[in-house]
Amino acid sequence: MPYFTLDASSLQHWLTDHADLAFRLGGDPSDWTIREVSDGNLNTVFLVDGPVGSLCCKQALPHVRVAPEWPMPLERALYEARYIRATAEAVRPAAPELYFYDDEMFLLVMECLTPHEVLRTALIRDEVQPGFSTTIGQYVARSVHATSWISQPFEHGSKLLADFAGNTALTRITVDLILTDPFRPCSRNPAPEAALLPDVEALHTDKPLHRAVGSLQDRFLTARQALLHGDLHTGSIMQHKDDVRVIDGEFATMGPIGFDCGLYLGNLALHACAAPNKRGLIEAEITAFWNSFTTELRTLLKTGGGDVWALSDEAQREELLENFLIGILQDTTGFCGLEMIRRTIGFAQVADYTLCTTPESRTEARRKALTIGRRLILEAANVATLENLLALMLLA
Amino acid sequence: MPYFTLDASSLQHWLTDHADLAFRLGGDPSDWTIREVSDGNLNTVFLVDGPVGSLCCKQALPHVRVAPEWPMPLERALYEARYIRATAEAVRPAAPELYFYDDEMFLLVMECLTPHEVLRTALIRDEVQPGFSTTIGQYVARSVHATSWISQPFEHGSKLLADFAGNTALTRITVDLILTDPFRPCSRNPAPEAALLPDVEALHTDKPLHRAVGSLQDRFLTARQALLHGDLHTGSIMQHKDDVRVIDGEFATMGPIGFDCGLYLGNLALHACAAPNKRGLIEAEITAFWNSFTTELRTLLKTGGGDVWALSDEAQREELLENFLIGILQDTTGFCGLEMIRRTIGFAQVADYTLCTTPESRTEARRKALTIGRRLILEAANVATLENLLALMLLA
Ligand SMILES: Nc1ncnc2c1ncn2[C@@H]1O[C@H](COP(=O)(O)OP(=O)(O)OP(=O)(O)O)[C@@H](O)[C@H]1O
Ligand SMILES: Nc1ncnc2c1ncn2[C@@H]1O[C@H](COP(=O)(O)OP(=O)(O)OP(=O)(O)O)[C@@H](O)[C@H]1O
Repeated sequence: MPYFTLDASSLQHWLTDHADLAFRLGGDPSDWTIREVSDGNLNTVFLVDGPVGSLCCKQALPHVRVAPEWPMPLERALYEARYIRATAEAVRPAAPELYFYDDEMFLLVMECLTPHEVLRTALIRDEVQPGFSTTIGQYVARSVHATSWISQPFEHGSKLLADFAGNTALTRITVDLILTDPFRPCSRNPAPEAALLPDVEALHTDKPLHRAVGSLQDRFLTARQALLHGDLHTGSIMQHKDDVRVIDGEFATMGPIGFDCGLYLGNLALHACAAPNKRGLIEAEITAFWNSFTTELRTLLKTGGGDVWALSDEAQREELLENFLIGILQDTTGFCGLEMIRRTIGFAQVADYTLCTTPESRTEARRKALTIGRRLILEAANVATLENLLALMLLA
Repeated sequence: MPYFTLDASSLQHWLTDHADLAFRLGGDPSDWTIREVSDGNLNTVFLVDGPVGSLCCKQALPHVRVAPEWPMPLERALYEARYIRATAEAVRPAAPELYFYDDEMFLLVMECLTPHEVLRTALIRDEVQPGFSTTIGQYVARSVHATSWISQPFEHGSKLLADFAGNTALTRITVDLILTDPFRPCSRNPAPEAALLPDVEALHTDKPLHRAVGSLQDRFLTARQALLHGDLHTGSIMQHKDDVRVIDGEFATMGPIGFDCGLYLGNLALHACAAPNKRGLIEAEITAFWNSFTTELRTLLKTGGGDVWALSDEAQREELLENFLIGILQDTTGFCGLEMIRRTIGFAQVADYTLCTTPESRTEARRKALTIGRRLILEAANVATLENLLALMLLA
């Protein structure tokens, strides 16, 4: 079927034509309820409920959903489908199951997470069950293990390079929106509040910072360590009680492992800037993430299996692994700083700042995020332990 | 035409059917002389002479030419064709022109270099015109500029990643033959002469060395900086007087720039081990290579153009470039060491050792190559200048 943009009624027809999916819903099409829940920037998402089961249907639009004048290739849906397939077995059950991908409609049909809530929303409403970051740490470790040169024959990573190198439209967003725009005058950056203007302008001329950002851009494009989710923020995670799931892998690309870690931690740290009373919670979540990530990775990588550590024995692998983790932590620190800055003054900002009750406290929170972000970027190479990172975040 | 292995007579027919190519030769098919000149390990090469012009025809075999029991996918010819196309404009005239690629016959038809000689052969016969390395340094700099994230929009590199990630059969050779086999007992390694056995066995248990080799394997697979030739040794270069050309790009892959530099310098350094009387020549060639490579790269990268240094001004770019060059030099040092070891005791050894006139001097030369190679691998991270590298090679 040639592509067209679905609405509730055409989606109902489309589902009727797909017996396996209709069977999951049960009953007759007239028994189904379909509601649009799109809240991201890019795509349309429908949740469909039937008498027996439910489905989540996500379709790419030919433009950015929240900025229709900005064209965006439909193929991003293909990369999201590929990402789910490449990682599903390793990360199960921490991602929704993909039931079907329609490569003409650029439509993913997947497990409907219900009554799950987006983690960012739950954090803002103070409705999270602490410890959710343990699942995210495991998730990243398991996807690293499933896709890196260390644990897999290199042919596996080469296939992933080939499969994801074409995801340039979304990688261009990362290259620009995260790694360039916040550090230069750019019409895509929303105008900051007057009180924050000097801070924003200072970033435009901060040469040492620009050098460090350039190194991170180089890491992002050059260091193809493992398959990244590519957009692992608290809005790409849904949770209900202790069931925590990662969604929205359309930015997937081979890249530095610390990129996924850094984006996740950056969004946690931003939350603490916006809600200083929750510093304890956030410190605990960051610690839980890093502990579970490193514990899981130590276990999974103990046996090697890839080409990179082929010559090492078990004792040497332990030493290699610890150095590897320090490298990841340094990348994590840098990308964390970038995410804090871009989510504060860039094109796609975060709702966490709505927790600030006065304009002054909001400016204060944003300034703090910029200050911490800058420090993380500049100090990344000196970080060797989680405590170092927490101290730079003023959370230790 | 479905694939079959060409011989002189079937190649004559094939050429007759390709009017453009036949036209380049001129005359009638009966006027053409065809001779096989295959001297590499992998493929069949024919040179065809006609009354007007000549052609070089290179066809992939379904196995390693010198080891027919070792199967090898035909697609390597496709990657060689892609490599020539991706770099031709930038490196002209330092590579033969590709006239035609037949993707069913896995056959490249290119400019016939005549009366050129393979550089390794010319070095062994002492027939080179000194300074040839200047062209090679420019060649590498120009192909880096044409393909790196620093100088090109990242979409260009992504396309190259996708185009070359499938070249796994030849990359597997690099991963195994250069970066693994020489450091472990392996049936592919020829048995060394008795006098060298202790040296070879020492490499099998040298844990610090294995750690450093693992880091280089990681660099090779992870650090996708630019499009590499991938097999830039003195047997992949042809020259006649001051006309120097690079051939045989079938190992092409995105990788660390120092890999190409290191393989080239490693083959020069090996020559000096085999022919100590030519240390002066070799030192001068290594210096010429590095000077021309860095001079050309400084000029080409001055204007930036890629995403990685997008935030930098000209003054900062100079500083970034100098650091970038040091990183390349360190990779160069490590890969140079690897090449010296694998070409001395691995599957594909070099003819340069035939210059040693006694078994004792040959063992001595090989031992020296192993010692220098090991030192380069272990000391790579401490190298900051060409003089450091030359000193490690005992050439300063
Ligand atoms: N499997 C699912 N089950 C239930 N709800 C889902 C599911 N996937 C997505 N949603 C809902 O749809 C919303 C948008 O989904 P998603 O984040 O994948 O879209 P997006 O447009 O790609 O977002 P972004 O702009 O962040 O990339 C989510 O925030 C969530 O509320
Ligand atoms: N364009 C050319 N013009 C003239 N002679 C050529 C040309 N290309 C290759 N040759 C000759 O053919 C020989 C083999 O070519 P080449 O090195 O490309 O083959 P190969 O089998 O891939 O080698 P290797 O095992 O090193 O990969 C060269 O050593 C050279 O003598």
